[in-house]
Amino acid sequence: MLLLHRAVVLRLQQACRLKSIPSRIYIQACSTNDSFRPQYPSLTFSGDNSSTRGWKVMGTLLGLGAVLAYQDHRCRAAQESTRIYTKEEVSSHTSPETGIWVTLGSEVFDVTEFVDLHPGGPSKLMLAAGGPLEPFWALYAVHNQSHVRELLAQYKIGELNPEDKVAPTVETSDPYADDPVRHPALKVNSQRPFNAEPPPELLTENYITPNPIFFTRNHLPVPNLDPDTYRLHIVGAPGGQSLSLSLDDLHNFPKYEITVTLQCAGNRRSEMTQVKEVKGLEWRTGAISTARWAGARLCDVLAQAGHQLCETEAHVCFEGLDSDPTGTAYGASIPLARAMDPEAEVLLAYEMNGQPLPRDHGFPVRVVVPGVVGARHVKWLGRVSVQPEESYSHWQRRDYKGFSPSVDWDTVDFDSAPSIQELPIQSAITEPRDGETVESGEMTIKGYAWSGGGRAVIRVDVSLDGGLTWQVAKLDGEEQRPRKAWAWRLWQLQAPVPAGQKELNIVCKAVDDGYNVQPDTVAPIWNLRGVLSNAWHRVHVFVAP
Amino acid sequence: MLLLHRAVVLRLQQACRLKSIPSRIYIQACSTNDSFRPQYPSLTFSGDNSSTRGWKVMGTLLGLGAVLAYQDHRCRAAQESTRIYTKEEVSSHTSPETGIWVTLGSEVFDVTEFVDLHPGGPSKLMLAAGGPLEPFWALYAVHNQSHVRELLAQYKIGELNPEDKVAPTVETSDPYADDPVRHPALKVNSQRPFNAEPPPELLTENYITPNPIFFTRNHLPVPNLDPDTYRLHIVGAPGGQSLSLSLDDLHNFPKYEITVTLQCAGNRRSEMTQVKEVKGLEWRTGAISTARWAGARLCDVLAQAGHQLCETEAHVCFEGLDSDPTGTAYGASIPLARAMDPEAEVLLAYEMNGQPLPRDHGFPVRVVVPGVVGARHVKWLGRVSVQPEESYSHWQRRDYKGFSPSVDWDTVDFDSAPSIQELPIQSAITEPRDGETVESGEMTIKGYAWSGGGRAVIRVDVSLDGGLTWQVAKLDGEEQRPRKAWAWRLWQLQAPVPAGQKELNIVCKAVDDGYNVQPDTVAPIWNLRGVLSNAWHRVHVFVAP
Repeated sequence: MLLLHRAVVLRLQQACRLKSIPSRIYIQACSTNDSFRPQYPSLTFSGDNSSTRGWKVMGTLLGLGAVLAYQDHRCRAAQESTRIYTKEEVSSHTSPETGIWVTLGSEVFDVTEFVDLHPGGPSKLMLAAGGPLEPFWALYAVHNQSHVRELLAQYKIGELNPEDKVAPTVETSDPYADDPVRHPALKVNSQRPFNAEPPPELLTENYITPNPIFFTRNHLPVPNLDPDTYRLHIVGAPGGQSLSLSLDDLHNFPKYEITVTLQCAGNRRSEMTQVKEVKGLEWRTGAISTARWAGARLCDVLAQAGHQLCETEAHVCFEGLDSDPTGTAYGASIPLARAMDPEAEVLLAYEMNGQPLPRDHGFPVRVVVPGVVGARHVKWLGRVSVQPEESYSHWQRRDYKGFSPSVDWDTVDFDSAPSIQELPIQSAITEPRDGETVESGEMTIKGYAWSGGGRAVIRVDVSLDGGLTWQVAKLDGEEQRPRKAWAWRLWQLQAPVPAGQKELNIVCKAVDDGYNVQPDTVAPIWNLRGVLSNAWHRVHVFVAP
Repeated sequence: MLLLHRAVVLRLQQACRLKSIPSRIYIQACSTNDSFRPQYPSLTFSGDNSSTRGWKVMGTLLGLGAVLAYQDHRCRAAQESTRIYTKEEVSSHTSPETGIWVTLGSEVFDVTEFVDLHPGGPSKLMLAAGGPLEPFWALYAVHNQSHVRELLAQYKIGELNPEDKVAPTVETSDPYADDPVRHPALKVNSQRPFNAEPPPELLTENYITPNPIFFTRNHLPVPNLDPDTYRLHIVGAPGGQSLSLSLDDLHNFPKYEITVTLQCAGNRRSEMTQVKEVKGLEWRTGAISTARWAGARLCDVLAQAGHQLCETEAHVCFEGLDSDPTGTAYGASIPLARAMDPEAEVLLAYEMNGQPLPRDHGFPVRVVVPGVVGARHVKWLGRVSVQPEESYSHWQRRDYKGFSPSVDWDTVDFDSAPSIQELPIQSAITEPRDGETVESGEMTIKGYAWSGGGRAVIRVDVSLDGGLTWQVAKLDGEEQRPRKAWAWRLWQLQAPVPAGQKELNIVCKAVDDGYNVQPDTVAPIWNLRGVLSNAWHRVHVFVAP
């Protein structure tokens, strides 16, 4: 962080020609706070107290940066005439060559010169390039301060065309026309159905992923459900009773709140594609996110319908209220033993990070199955039943299974492999990014690690030489409960850049408390659907001369 | 198997000069039994019904082999004079160069010419070279037939020196002097304390490992306990009662019997040593075995002492009755949550494969913790207590933990890593052996696979080209219960030897139902104690021209 500060100071010195700038102040700001990390604090969620200190430090830094930058730009402000730009014009300004423009309300700003001064790093500001700042300021509330607005005002170049405010006409024959509006930071892998992931630099900015950038994995159009008429049908056990639960009924069950990481089986599929073509969305490292989920326990609801554990293997089948044109709903199942185990903490969740579920994440009710692949966390939940066999849904029986690299679409026998439930140990590097140029001296490497089945992450090893030598990263985030480590650990390593290196092959690998490890390479775990991609994560960077 | 038969026939033809030998008979013997495998049936254990068919086929084959061999040797029998040999002389005859001798009772046999004709394969007979046949015939009862004895009689060359029957004098100051007699097939890694593993060709001969060749991992001398005075002390809960249980008391609890694979954390350590020196016994692939264990459930015994699950994390500490010269006993612990969970099936076992526990395996009572590292299955159990923290035993806190490859004896912090409990997915090739020469045509590759925590083995991939391409092996052995897959799967692959290859790099890797996989290579999981060695297992063989 010290290096980043120095870089900022140098840039400010150049920009402002304030040769006597007191760089001592920056160093002091760091040294008084050992755990300072270069990140913006997020919206504060219950249980996320760690952000308070970050706020203060970032406030200090932002304030100082703003003051210094202000020196350079105050003379420029009033000189701009009120020119009118279309949204289209703004959206074409996304690079240093074209200029980097953003909007706030109806105002248009050219922040080209400010990008490198952005205290949160240039890459974060670039996420908003060509579009509105609001979605990002909503995530990082530190921006909502007068000195930030004053700073921004210096870069104003005009106003948005008022006619641009009219929403585009909706194509009503499009089954996806009613899908919700999404956060512009999301990297979209598929629009219809909507599938998108947060960029790496935002993904590990917060232990709890803000709702708007939580990765979204939809299989079908998003249903628009009325919470007042919504009913959840629970098929009763023989001798028990079937239930038709309103949202209020569900709220009357004891409420449980737990932090759970969800990961799509296809996370990091893009790395498998590099080995050989697979069928599936090109997820990078972002098909994973963490939230505080609250709701009723599935075991309590099932018990009220008369269900209990039985000696023979049984399954709890979930049906969503999303459906394709033929009326086929999304569906999946989990073993009854997991569903009935209070320690497994399976939820019928109606809250995500203290808010009602967003539409993209299953409003009004979804299943949350801690430690289990995302595909079983059925959204827009409509029906729950207990069956002697797994769900007959396509997504349970003909998808989300792993196969040998030798199996292709001509030879695959889906019945020969079990449906994915618990996921294996996983980790990835989110900073620096592949292809980035890093400064010599000391560097910071950041990422996430998670394992399925409630297994805790106990260690992350990081290599700067492609896996020949290793250093142990520092694990951040909440302490994990034994056997209930449902959430990821964020990690970071401060390491000297090896002298004389022009390039680095950075690698991470994690270990869980069953001492499961990640495989070294992708090819031997390649499979035709590109799921379970958990080889060492590798990032290749250049070292600035 | 057909190839083996042909080889046997050819050898017999050469040996007996019976040019018109009806090889058709051999082919028929095979083709009538599709699942025929070239192995000896074992002692029959409860639940191991699969051996019955093998018996019959082997009986047929052995009978036929015996008859044919008899043609060649009957004229030789009576010619031998009754020469007298010492045990020492016999033990020096263990190779084709010196001649291969064995004994049965007081008789000495030169089986040099028979070794290659041995229906179970030369390597199995060679295990007995230079010593008595009895321990092996005890394992493979098919030998106890008159025609086998007749066959053997042809090779008699003399008698053992009667004076040799006197047992060697016991060094009473040796704390290990009272250790039990062991099976000669065991490959000894350490005599004091005794640590030994079965050779690979015997290890996967049977799904249930016969007691005499079950791998033995002792930390201290074997105590000699009197079952009549034996007491197991269970420290009672506050408000509960402490128990002092005799063997009869323990038998009065409901009896449970389960098949469980035990694996030492150091299994396959020898492969880590090849990367860099480690501290520990040089286990090859045999520090793993499977038995039917019977006993009382730990949860039932703890409940009688007033224990129940508590909200805070607690541990069940076990103390053995084996101890070092300072009186320090072996000890270990497991989480109370596992101990109290009936589904975890933790046993206080007093039977192993239908017999009282052998002394080397904890007579009269040991702990069996399914899915957990061998080190927690405390033998010669003396005391059980529930504690707020893990056992303070050296073996719980200063051993049996995994570390990053970067950690050495100068930097290790044992408190920084959790004690090993559940073990990761493991597999190994037991046939062919490293360095062996295989026939061209079709080959059989055999091995085992197992995972900790009750996770089932769902697939074993085998490669003949070092990991470039893979084939899926056939899983044998008992069907596994969901979440209670405590025992290994044996596997085999029949595969054509790729034409034109002079050497093969055979590799295996397994997958469990959490889709955990084995890492590709050893170096990145190297650790200073050489535990958790579960990289792909690799065997290099030559192809006969």
